[in-house]
Amino acid sequence: MAHRVSIIGLGLLGGSLGMALRKAGCEVTGWDRDPQTLALARERGAIDHAAPSIDAAASAADFAVVVATPVLAMRSVFEAIAPHVLPGTVVTDLGSTKRQVTAWAKELLSPETPFVGGHPMAGLEVAGIAHARADLFEGAAFCITGEPEAPAWARERVRTLAIRAGARTLGISPEHHDHLVAAISHLPLLASAALVRVTTDEEHWEAMADLAASGYRDTTRVASGDPLMHRDICATNADQIRPLLLGMAEALREVAGLLDDPAAMSAWLTQAKSARDAWVESSRRNSQLGTP
Amino acid sequence: MAHRVSIIGLGLLGGSLGMALRKAGCEVTGWDRDPQTLALARERGAIDHAAPSIDAAASAADFAVVVATPVLAMRSVFEAIAPHVLPGTVVTDLGSTKRQVTAWAKELLSPETPFVGGHPMAGLEVAGIAHARADLFEGAAFCITGEPEAPAWARERVRTLAIRAGARTLGISPEHHDHLVAAISHLPLLASAALVRVTTDEEHWEAMADLAASGYRDTTRVASGDPLMHRDICATNADQIRPLLLGMAEALREVAGLLDDPAAMSAWLTQAKSARDAWVESSRRNSQLGTP
Repeated sequence: MAHRVSIIGLGLLGGSLGMALRKAGCEVTGWDRDPQTLALARERGAIDHAAPSIDAAASAADFAVVVATPVLAMRSVFEAIAPHVLPGTVVTDLGSTKRQVTAWAKELLSPETPFVGGHPMAGLEVAGIAHARADLFEGAAFCITGEPEAPAWARERVRTLAIRAGARTLGISPEHHDHLVAAISHLPLLASAALVRVTTDEEHWEAMADLAASGYRDTTRVASGDPLMHRDICATNADQIRPLLLGMAEALREVAGLLDDPAAMSAWLTQAKSARDAWVESSRRNSQLGTP
Repeated sequence: MAHRVSIIGLGLLGGSLGMALRKAGCEVTGWDRDPQTLALARERGAIDHAAPSIDAAASAADFAVVVATPVLAMRSVFEAIAPHVLPGTVVTDLGSTKRQVTAWAKELLSPETPFVGGHPMAGLEVAGIAHARADLFEGAAFCITGEPEAPAWARERVRTLAIRAGARTLGISPEHHDHLVAAISHLPLLASAALVRVTTDEEHWEAMADLAASGYRDTTRVASGDPLMHRDICATNADQIRPLLLGMAEALREVAGLLDDPAAMSAWLTQAKSARDAWVESSRRNSQLGTP
């Protein structure tokens, strides 16, 4: 029999996971607080069934309930679903930070309901069910933050979902997760947004806009992401993000003092290029290897 | 009869321009200080003729000599070619900054040789003739910085080259050019490199590297560009770049103080998203319009 999975919150991530899991043979029930989103998710094949209520979505799953709302909304989702999750069903999520969500799950879900956090390292600068795609998680790293508290069978369930979605899984604690993603996801996001704000504030921005090309486009891409999702990330990971922002501010002040010194600039730029090229090479190897 | 154009420096930009101009019916002579690059340029169809010397390249052109070396190398190129450029031939360049190059041209070229600076707003994070492609300038903005000093016929020649390469041209002074590109090209470049340096310096970078995904890849892409080209940009545009670096450092410090405040973060992020989305929309319109 097909695994029955419910997805609460049918944006880009929830919708894409639904599409991928349906392709992999799961039976997917969905719910979203926005009726139009729910209808579109059904229309686009992201879910088999549109639940009439969040309670009904929670009780329709025998395998896992996936909470795919923005992080700050998860507290009230956990409160709402807690009495309705079937015994033996795991609750997981797709949020970008993991400490706060894990604490809420512990506080609000029934002690019989295991919670195992999940975070697929995939996204687009566009949001919403209209952009959902079955291959969004293909080859992506998928963090699973259940250990050491969640039982092994519960962690295995979330691993199964991730693998069915085409991702490669990585077990990690909520604390370590939040530390790592602050650097490789949250800092780039805020740096990108700061770059947009500084440049578009310039007096001659209109003339600048006409010249900005692919370098500007790529460097600022993530600034076009969902502000509410990003606001929630900042609110739940501020202590990890803050020192990185200050460190990058310091690095910019430092390089401002080197501009006139070609030898120093050459060394500074070459080190950045080498480090970035090495990362590109290693991530190429990782995505070729897939899940071990 | 075909316009005879010489290109000195056959990297990504020089090689791509050669390919595009040959397609458009020009007869292209090339020279590069590296014999292997010169041979590969010939092999890849970027040039019709490989000049035996820089002098011979300079005197082979009746239409224009295009200097496509890194900016700091242009001084000695101008010195070398000055006695050999034919009367009635224009000298132009493809450098990323324009004030210094224009000053060197004025100082070093013969008073009979008009100089009209050029800067195609196109590039890739890879360098070298191996990556050259005839369509690199297709739809790109191409700054032409000859006015007001260069004669109209000389500016028109460089405009002809740009249009034959598929670009849309934009007349602008060297000073205004350098001010504009500091914000939309040089600041993104240094912000991207600073982001790489800060993140790869982290103690847990190895674990972070494994999680970094498309957001990190795009935000840091330009840091993989040619360090020598970028060093030269910094050396010749430091006064314009410095205040932008300090402004962005200030913006990062400012946002570090807002992280815990969801309402303030939401406003800050939404403004960045709106500004970036508006730019994407306007640049889409521009590239559809092409050269007016």
